[in-house]
Amino acid sequence: MANLNGTTSDLRTTFLGVYSVLKSELLNDPAFEWTDDSRRWVDRMLDYNVPGGKLNRGLSVIDSYKLLKEGKELTEDEVFLASALGWCIEWLQAYFLVLDDIMDNSHIRRGQLCWFRVPKVGMIAANDSVLLRNHIPRILKKHFREKAYYVDLLDLFNEVEFQTASGQMIDLITTLEGEKDLSKYSLSLHRRIVQYKTAYYSFYLPVACALLMAGENLDNHIDVKNILIDMGIYFQVQDDYLDSFGEPEKVGKIGTDIEDFKCSWLVVKALERCSEEQKKILFAHYGKADAADVAKVKALYHELDLQGVFAEYESKSYEKLTSCIEAHPSKAVQSVLKSFLGKIYKRQK
Amino acid sequence: MANLNGTTSDLRTTFLGVYSVLKSELLNDPAFEWTDDSRRWVDRMLDYNVPGGKLNRGLSVIDSYKLLKEGKELTEDEVFLASALGWCIEWLQAYFLVLDDIMDNSHIRRGQLCWFRVPKVGMIAANDSVLLRNHIPRILKKHFREKAYYVDLLDLFNEVEFQTASGQMIDLITTLEGEKDLSKYSLSLHRRIVQYKTAYYSFYLPVACALLMAGENLDNHIDVKNILIDMGIYFQVQDDYLDSFGEPEKVGKIGTDIEDFKCSWLVVKALERCSEEQKKILFAHYGKADAADVAKVKALYHELDLQGVFAEYESKSYEKLTSCIEAHPSKAVQSVLKSFLGKIYKRQK
Repeated sequence: MANLNGTTSDLRTTFLGVYSVLKSELLNDPAFEWTDDSRRWVDRMLDYNVPGGKLNRGLSVIDSYKLLKEGKELTEDEVFLASALGWCIEWLQAYFLVLDDIMDNSHIRRGQLCWFRVPKVGMIAANDSVLLRNHIPRILKKHFREKAYYVDLLDLFNEVEFQTASGQMIDLITTLEGEKDLSKYSLSLHRRIVQYKTAYYSFYLPVACALLMAGENLDNHIDVKNILIDMGIYFQVQDDYLDSFGEPEKVGKIGTDIEDFKCSWLVVKALERCSEEQKKILFAHYGKADAADVAKVKALYHELDLQGVFAEYESKSYEKLTSCIEAHPSKAVQSVLKSFLGKIYKRQK
Repeated sequence: MANLNGTTSDLRTTFLGVYSVLKSELLNDPAFEWTDDSRRWVDRMLDYNVPGGKLNRGLSVIDSYKLLKEGKELTEDEVFLASALGWCIEWLQAYFLVLDDIMDNSHIRRGQLCWFRVPKVGMIAANDSVLLRNHIPRILKKHFREKAYYVDLLDLFNEVEFQTASGQMIDLITTLEGEKDLSKYSLSLHRRIVQYKTAYYSFYLPVACALLMAGENLDNHIDVKNILIDMGIYFQVQDDYLDSFGEPEKVGKIGTDIEDFKCSWLVVKALERCSEEQKKILFAHYGKADAADVAKVKALYHELDLQGVFAEYESKSYEKLTSCIEAHPSKAVQSVLKSFLGKIYKRQK
């Protein structure tokens, strides 16, 4: 674990090294009587589902913690602990994704078959997602039980998971099969879904972990939470925008929000800006799998200049976030927030 | 909430009253921005899935706590807190059952359609099970955050959930569709599945909750844990026995362990005791849906006198458990354990 404070690729290597340590601890957890079969199963399940993403959420715990330490060289122990918390977020994400793919009946995730579609896995995947979720408190107990902030970590992960599941619920019940009703879609609904389903765990959670490790009381950082939630919403608006207007080669996937009747920022903006005639087009063609329907919706998006609307939203958001960040009393916290914002501003993928 | 220390039916009424309080707190949890739709959804989902069971696990927290207090009248607050912990176990059970029913593709649970089969619910049930799981730490935080044993409660629920999911995993991977192999079944596998999948959360957890509330350190009660695990195993052996030999009118359901290729205590005992000829019958007919196959297996169970084997197991278990209990230094703890044993000994349902 040399060069802990080195370049990005070093950091990634270190981070992946911590994954191996955590996995091997979990596969030997004394709270369970392992057999070869069960150990093999969990080993393969973890490798298949946990480390294959971009790891942005996990890595950002280490980044944030470094910035909070204002450039001081981190000890090996600190890097390990920040990485372990980063992995807990990746585990949380894996748990949600395995279950989401079952619920959405998806096919491909991160360039491979969804776990539940792998031969002989099937519905066992649902229990595997429960195992993934349960690994988080095992990791926390093993490495943080003696820390003064242990109970706050548990509360934090519990609260954020609750919020994410609640966001998922509003998303699911508003897109209820057989009740497709565009008139329910609004900016406030979009915001609520995104805030709960994505922003808490993707933006607030990594920074909150770093703050706890740095000895901070989260109750004193409501403003940081609010800024990160707004950043998470901005991030998801970008995602919604790229789903229709991005270049699939850059984005890495072909968007299907229109086909899937998603409460996307684009459809909400379209509803806000369209005439009665245009509204009829939206209602007639949104949420249909046929390419001709999708094309009609996209043509309408262009007609309504949603590219221009997005460009304005993007620059306004950036300005607003920047001024909120600069109003924060701590330079170290400012640097954490600016680093996050810098990573996502004007992203094309 | 009068008559808190009164009769069993009073206790049940009090317990159900606490459910209403907890539900209403959850439906107004400030960590989430509720809408009428989402509140209605969770309200219905909870009523459908949480309070409809026998409530034995939940009620036994209050029973156990009373016995630990050696007959002292409990305060209203104590009854409320013990009930809240009891409900956390019922919530945990609901979470497992909703997900199990999806995994097993079941039809009926507690006399009604499985939640995922209710119109318009479908796969949303998977996320509902996640919500059920997330309600536990919400209840704990609201009512126990300031208690000295709060962190121990969180650790306890986390560890027991991990063990239950791990037990479920061994059950699932040994009964893997397409790999039906009776020769894998043994008493030690049976014991391992039962211990992790059932005994921890059904037997140890209620008593451990009561011990924590009474100010005890669980590290000092490993012997209590071991006795309760053994009791849980004895309970499951009864369950396995009643599945084939019980009277469906009393048991309340028609057993399908033979059809389902379950690693039941009966099949394990049959494998232990059968001749090579009889073994062929077991291998040929176990795990088949046809009534003629099931009848052949049941005939073999009779031939091998599994009723007699069970009767001997039952009396030996009772003796052994009783002598372990009587070796315990605390009379109060003895009374808790004896009360549990008394409730299940020679049960026919």
